[in-house]
Amino acid sequence: MHLPLGFQFAGTHCGIKKNPQKEDFSLVVAPHGATAAGVYTQNLVFAAPVAYDRHRTPAADIRVVAVNSGNANACTGDRGMQDAREMGRLAAAAVGAAENQSLVMSTGVIGVFLPMEKVAAGASQCAKQLGSDETAFMSAARGILTTDQGTKIASRSLVLGGREVRLAGMCKGAGMIGPRMATMLGIVLTDAALAPRDAQAVLASAARQSFNCISVEGHMSTNDTVLLLASGAAQAKPLAGEDLAAFEAALTELCIELATQIPDDGEGASHLIEIEIRGTKTTDDARQIAQTVANSALVKTAIAGGDPNWGRIVSATGYAGVRFDPAGVGLVLNGHVLYESGAPVAFDAKTVSTSIKANRLTKIVLTFREGPASIRFWTSDLNVEYVRFNADYTT
Amino acid sequence: MHLPLGFQFAGTHCGIKKNPQKEDFSLVVAPHGATAAGVYTQNLVFAAPVAYDRHRTPAADIRVVAVNSGNANACTGDRGMQDAREMGRLAAAAVGAAENQSLVMSTGVIGVFLPMEKVAAGASQCAKQLGSDETAFMSAARGILTTDQGTKIASRSLVLGGREVRLAGMCKGAGMIGPRMATMLGIVLTDAALAPRDAQAVLASAARQSFNCISVEGHMSTNDTVLLLASGAAQAKPLAGEDLAAFEAALTELCIELATQIPDDGEGASHLIEIEIRGTKTTDDARQIAQTVANSALVKTAIAGGDPNWGRIVSATGYAGVRFDPAGVGLVLNGHVLYESGAPVAFDAKTVSTSIKANRLTKIVLTFREGPASIRFWTSDLNVEYVRFNADYTT
Repeated sequence: MHLPLGFQFAGTHCGIKKNPQKEDFSLVVAPHGATAAGVYTQNLVFAAPVAYDRHRTPAADIRVVAVNSGNANACTGDRGMQDAREMGRLAAAAVGAAENQSLVMSTGVIGVFLPMEKVAAGASQCAKQLGSDETAFMSAARGILTTDQGTKIASRSLVLGGREVRLAGMCKGAGMIGPRMATMLGIVLTDAALAPRDAQAVLASAARQSFNCISVEGHMSTNDTVLLLASGAAQAKPLAGEDLAAFEAALTELCIELATQIPDDGEGASHLIEIEIRGTKTTDDARQIAQTVANSALVKTAIAGGDPNWGRIVSATGYAGVRFDPAGVGLVLNGHVLYESGAPVAFDAKTVSTSIKANRLTKIVLTFREGPASIRFWTSDLNVEYVRFNADYTT
Repeated sequence: MHLPLGFQFAGTHCGIKKNPQKEDFSLVVAPHGATAAGVYTQNLVFAAPVAYDRHRTPAADIRVVAVNSGNANACTGDRGMQDAREMGRLAAAAVGAAENQSLVMSTGVIGVFLPMEKVAAGASQCAKQLGSDETAFMSAARGILTTDQGTKIASRSLVLGGREVRLAGMCKGAGMIGPRMATMLGIVLTDAALAPRDAQAVLASAARQSFNCISVEGHMSTNDTVLLLASGAAQAKPLAGEDLAAFEAALTELCIELATQIPDDGEGASHLIEIEIRGTKTTDDARQIAQTVANSALVKTAIAGGDPNWGRIVSATGYAGVRFDPAGVGLVLNGHVLYESGAPVAFDAKTVSTSIKANRLTKIVLTFREGPASIRFWTSDLNVEYVRFNADYTT
């Protein structure tokens, strides 16, 4: 792992989750401060921690991010807002920072008040265990998980202006995943130096091509948050010009690597589905079509069953709300041409079915004749396991 | 049943479906002609029979509607259009009508060409079996089914201008059901007399409150069609004024009775879910919110599991694309208040869970403080059976 300089990490169990083996509270600390940027859910019903962070980013000097899992502090009214503020205050106090140098994140069940004594315990336990090595990082990465099957992390390094710069990120999410953020939390750290405005711009751009291009079932969450913290520990001056562009490219790659781990770990999923849209007028058109195909239960169940029922894919494009000429549509599934110029192409159903069943990744390419825009979008299939899991989550 | 005068019916097996016990072709005949109106899918990728009917309705003198099940004649390009025209010609010839007095409907698998010899056999077999009694009507109602568990019919009678007028309808649909029509077909018959323009207006209005307020998984089909045929056999003069309004009210009620049978028979469904939205600015706002809640897999799986996980319902309203004050939202589930003025209300989870499990119908009422508009919307829950069924439909 390429761990950025200037950060410390800890994860602990403080009792929000029932299972004592599972971390449910994490701290990410920047002892000398970090530039911070954030992108958030666009759900009108957003959680208290989202409100808390949103008005505070971008920021020039953030010292601590506190995250709890097992409770989303969402749909909790005024008391939820007070609890989010108190969580920020407790985290700041635990690491000797000012209250306005803290950010908070919560994920888990909606509509239950945060158990504040446990939150206080989590903050003080974590503060005592802080470390800057991989073990500490992994412990923090576990503390943000809910129904995830394992940690979701990525890192890389690049040389900018003659100095090595590192990026490392962690994220979580497996259900309630709709594009424009998901019940996902993400923290990306770097020891590059970034001006707050630049940090916000590169994070927003990277998120548009990564975290905003994934879905599990398309249900947009109340809590989605991705934070970028830049400690500047590897550099003297903030990035600019070509170096900033190179950083943005690396950040985008890293965010795609993190984001695709989410639908790949979609609840019960047996396939990661990549939907590539080519030849639309605009990128928004491409995203809209990709998202509509991705969120069709009929498309998702077909892939789960290894069924090359391409009519479900083509018919979903038609209700995406984007104008196009149906006679110009083509479809390639795992390299097999199934539909061309708006008419079916004869193909061997067994061969295509086998190729779906044999691979974890299913690649759908839909082509249009409207313009030069394109997008890639990732989702999971829909399995019996997803339904079993979600039919009995709170009770 | 209140069967309208002026119609004949037949259903037969002609070999489009494999099972010889299952009807797959139906005729509805108006020997002396009928006024006809239609409402159709808004999917850009629409099937050939939709194109055929759409340019022909409203019409003053339709003599025959031919319907096949087992093959949707959708995504079939130019050849599909030729086949739809030929199906209309065959049906008209079989009952001694002109080609332009016919309408056609198809439902079933997408992207396979219609087997025209079987279609020809179906038309001629049906023409020989035509009857105007309930047995004949039920046989036609069976011939339009695909994955439905049984026929979906409704009828009523009312007195208009001193004469009895009858309405009877049949519909089909259980999967690929999204609002703004569904993979659903519907035919509503009446012996009232209607001018073509009035027929179109009352059908469109009734559909907005019935067939356009249902979903199973929200996947908008390529074939959705509802036709209204008015023989005028019970009356001399076309309805107008108060009589027309009374007819429209009865038609709307009948369409709601037909439409709700579709999600009630949603593939694998164990609950019919009624979502009532109150207090939005416009009916379109209400519909948009209802539809977003209805199509959330997380909401549907929660109801399937008898889980009063109300956070999923409230959070879905926030990404419907409608502006509202989250602090004004309330939620009542099966009569239990769970959320009020944007904050949770303490409730006994066991009691609410039991009420979901014990009833086929789950009633969700969401209240807003934006205006006077409201809507009712119906959907099915999402069960393991739905996934099993749809993971293996064509192969």
